[in-house]
Amino acid sequence: MSRFDAETAVEPAGEGRWATHLSAGWNIGDNSNGGYALTSVLRAMRSLVPHPDPISVTTHFLRPARGDTDGDVKAEVVRLGRTVSTLRGSLWQEGKQRLEVLAAFSDLSTGSRGGPEIAEAPPTIPPIEDCVHRGSLEQGVELPILSRVDVHVHPDHAPAGGSDRALIDGWIRFSDGAQPSTMALPFFADALPPSLFPLLGYIGWVPTIELTVHARRIPAPGWLQVRQESHDLHDGRMIESGSLWDSTGALVATSRQIGLLLT
Amino acid sequence: MSRFDAETAVEPAGEGRWATHLSAGWNIGDNSNGGYALTSVLRAMRSLVPHPDPISVTTHFLRPARGDTDGDVKAEVVRLGRTVSTLRGSLWQEGKQRLEVLAAFSDLSTGSRGGPEIAEAPPTIPPIEDCVHRGSLEQGVELPILSRVDVHVHPDHAPAGGSDRALIDGWIRFSDGAQPSTMALPFFADALPPSLFPLLGYIGWVPTIELTVHARRIPAPGWLQVRQESHDLHDGRMIESGSLWDSTGALVATSRQIGLLLT
Repeated sequence: MSRFDAETAVEPAGEGRWATHLSAGWNIGDNSNGGYALTSVLRAMRSLVPHPDPISVTTHFLRPARGDTDGDVKAEVVRLGRTVSTLRGSLWQEGKQRLEVLAAFSDLSTGSRGGPEIAEAPPTIPPIEDCVHRGSLEQGVELPILSRVDVHVHPDHAPAGGSDRALIDGWIRFSDGAQPSTMALPFFADALPPSLFPLLGYIGWVPTIELTVHARRIPAPGWLQVRQESHDLHDGRMIESGSLWDSTGALVATSRQIGLLLT
Repeated sequence: MSRFDAETAVEPAGEGRWATHLSAGWNIGDNSNGGYALTSVLRAMRSLVPHPDPISVTTHFLRPARGDTDGDVKAEVVRLGRTVSTLRGSLWQEGKQRLEVLAAFSDLSTGSRGGPEIAEAPPTIPPIEDCVHRGSLEQGVELPILSRVDVHVHPDHAPAGGSDRALIDGWIRFSDGAQPSTMALPFFADALPPSLFPLLGYIGWVPTIELTVHARRIPAPGWLQVRQESHDLHDGRMIESGSLWDSTGALVATSRQIGLLLT
């Protein structure tokens, strides 16, 4: 079992309840990465419906989740549908709610609908060996998460300021060799440094208020290419949009979040 | 009182419950416009917190909402915060849940955070008088909603196919002269024809599975400029992103949705 699967596992603990344990291996500083923390809620949700793929996942980050700490997960079906099911769930630690999640699941493997297609090709960026490993960058915070994922960013987008756009291109994969899955896409959509940093430098902490991720296609094995851009920043609140492509160049997820810039 | 305010009003009906009545004046065909239907839930939510502006609104459309029909609204606070509060809510009609909503409210008027800004200017499009009124376009469905909003679309983006992009630019306002507010932005973000139509023609119905709208700034009086684009369509599911700018050119909302293409 991959470390991601093992460290996001949930155990039934009564009607609509599950127990989990967040590892500190996915921490950003002292807190769990948000995409990692929400995955245990997704796993509980998926156990309740026949549909395997999270086609829409909205998470509100109420308080930071903590690594090396037990968690209580709640989940319930809002509507069980033939092709799409909707669920809500939450993560609690030490008696306090950390996350509220609203999601829709479907089956991306069927390919039965057919019809016209629109697809955005990934931007052309330097190959992985010409990108910069995130671990070699000064980022103002300890990154235990780099024990779990390999993140390489475009050399022109290294998050130290001086770029003319709030944009980061890069490559990402699990460091234990596990292959990406649709259940891991919300995590991969939240694993780059804030895209404000190439434009503004390390000006502060950028906690997410709300993140929505749409899984679009089942990812092929291999590295994921990722782009994240902050296209609106006003009065300390920013909107960041992201895309993930698999090793065949297929778009596998889109994401958008609203975050606070705390300087 | 504007028609939008009057026709989205809610009356308390017990702890965590409100009564509403959806008007048929905002219908697309036989169903309520989604952004209109969700507004009654937003009003119930706003009555529970001190923050006036919906900075993140995610709505799952479980079943079509019906015009000229009473509705039951439920809402509860998930977390009451100092600067951001999170709530969930739902709309029910005839005993069936129509919408599930998860939202964060804050105060966009304070302007106290300051700091760096990033702002996307609106695209240059023809003035309103050179755009095409939505009512003059064949759209394959009755549009009672055009009694409530004036929608004018870029002449090159008229939704009859033949465009090279799934993109619609246009102008929109309430037809009774009411000015836009942050509470109306989720509605305005869901009031154009599907942006697939300029590329593909009237190929079917595009019901929304999930829509997320972020109010970014308090809109100035006047027309809103809107852009919506479908940038991914696969196996009958599409992602559409949108932006709304006010009459001063300020970005007032961003939106993204996942919808089904039912041909």
